[in-house]
Amino acid sequence: MPMQVYLNGILTPDALTRIDPSDRGFTLSDGLFETLRVRAGIPQRLDAHLKRLRAGASLLGLPVPLDDDALTEALISTAAANGLADAVLRLTLTRGPAPRGLLPPGSPSPTLLIVAGPPPPPAGPLYAVVATVTRRNEHSPLSRCKCLAVLDNVLARREAAERGAEDAILLNTAGRLAETTIANLFLVIGGRVMTPPVEEGALPGVRRAEVISRLDAVETPLDPGDLPRAEEAFVTNALGVRPLVAVNERPVGDGRAGPLTCRLLLPE
Amino acid sequence: MPMQVYLNGILTPDALTRIDPSDRGFTLSDGLFETLRVRAGIPQRLDAHLKRLRAGASLLGLPVPLDDDALTEALISTAAANGLADAVLRLTLTRGPAPRGLLPPGSPSPTLLIVAGPPPPPAGPLYAVVATVTRRNEHSPLSRCKCLAVLDNVLARREAAERGAEDAILLNTAGRLAETTIANLFLVIGGRVMTPPVEEGALPGVRRAEVISRLDAVETPLDPGDLPRAEEAFVTNALGVRPLVAVNERPVGDGRAGPLTCRLLLPE
Repeated sequence: MPMQVYLNGILTPDALTRIDPSDRGFTLSDGLFETLRVRAGIPQRLDAHLKRLRAGASLLGLPVPLDDDALTEALISTAAANGLADAVLRLTLTRGPAPRGLLPPGSPSPTLLIVAGPPPPPAGPLYAVVATVTRRNEHSPLSRCKCLAVLDNVLARREAAERGAEDAILLNTAGRLAETTIANLFLVIGGRVMTPPVEEGALPGVRRAEVISRLDAVETPLDPGDLPRAEEAFVTNALGVRPLVAVNERPVGDGRAGPLTCRLLLPE
Repeated sequence: MPMQVYLNGILTPDALTRIDPSDRGFTLSDGLFETLRVRAGIPQRLDAHLKRLRAGASLLGLPVPLDDDALTEALISTAAANGLADAVLRLTLTRGPAPRGLLPPGSPSPTLLIVAGPPPPPAGPLYAVVATVTRRNEHSPLSRCKCLAVLDNVLARREAAERGAEDAILLNTAGRLAETTIANLFLVIGGRVMTPPVEEGALPGVRRAEVISRLDAVETPLDPGDLPRAEEAFVTNALGVRPLVAVNERPVGDGRAGPLTCRLLLPE
């Protein structure tokens, strides 16, 4: 059965779903996205995802075409239309088709796309590298919203693959730790749980906020030199929590999932 | 008559041209573009544009599906199909449709799109602001290629409009001058023509290289404090040269196009 894709209010088979070649999401990365985990038909942490989407839209001056109830309905119906009680949804919101030029049109026709897929298999321990190809720009407000301009992350993800790793830690322009290409980063040093502040280039992750609260984590600038000092490390995103067991082929702590990470992997 | 759009070897009316919703240009800003001026049916400075496209593709590890002759033929035929002897062409090359995830597929099916439009009317003097909303990331190699991740430029262009200006100068993360949202920046100070180096976040513009050579310009780091010192300033891109006559509502020099700018506006 072909996948059913939601586009501007209508569910259609993906092969029939058309993005206009003048869509500013395609031409100028002018848009946002959210990745949501669905369990038993219910999008998880939905309020936090929608809140972040609206914060990004506000930064971009991009109208969100639906209210939260209608967005919720669209998300749930897209998972249901594909027969997926467990799913990953990607919602993409762009400024829509427009003539050439950077200046947004006065009355945009936003594009709202929702694509469903099966959840990924449970992820094991993460072996990462520190990206050398690029840096995350903490001087841009885009580092604090989930926008389509993620090509730096693609570059770093390619570098990770070339170096035999599964993800890369991005440094910010000051050379401090920001996050990985798809997840927030936590270190445990001397029993304290620490994570880079949003001002350092960390995306304000939905799961990140939960973990900060649950483990009473400290938001503080961290250097690459803090990695060998950590007795434990893990990464978080909408799809879950993973132990970070090695960076640049050097083990973190004893090279195994630590006790706090294991605690997070259990239901609260 | 509807516009004819080139997509992967086929010219079709734009309303029938379909970008796949999983295209990585749309989902991840994973691609490049070039803007070319066409005069009398001939794309201008074509070799330099194609060279920059290939340099960007090399950085991204993105195969270019056509050789230079075939790209040239595609560009010329797109302008011709729209009856435009004078035109602006935008060529967009993306990594094409792919499953979810940042890691590019092993064998991508790139998307090559060419859209033609009439040339813009001659541009007058430019009133610009210095963007405060964001900074250009000179630590990313993407600052040196014309990639789709230009959302920072969109933010700065919106700020310019809100402040009554037509373009914005982007500072790099060190607070020095990089370029405008769509053009390279030149200052004339004490008779010397100066422009920010590529290492400072300046896109290696095709016209920029020409102007450096023609005016024996110096590539040197420049501060916002150098703007009031300039007796003359101008910006360059594929569409032309414009005098920069005011920044943040303060005139540059005597607030009129300077002699070197006028010289550039004449044919060599």
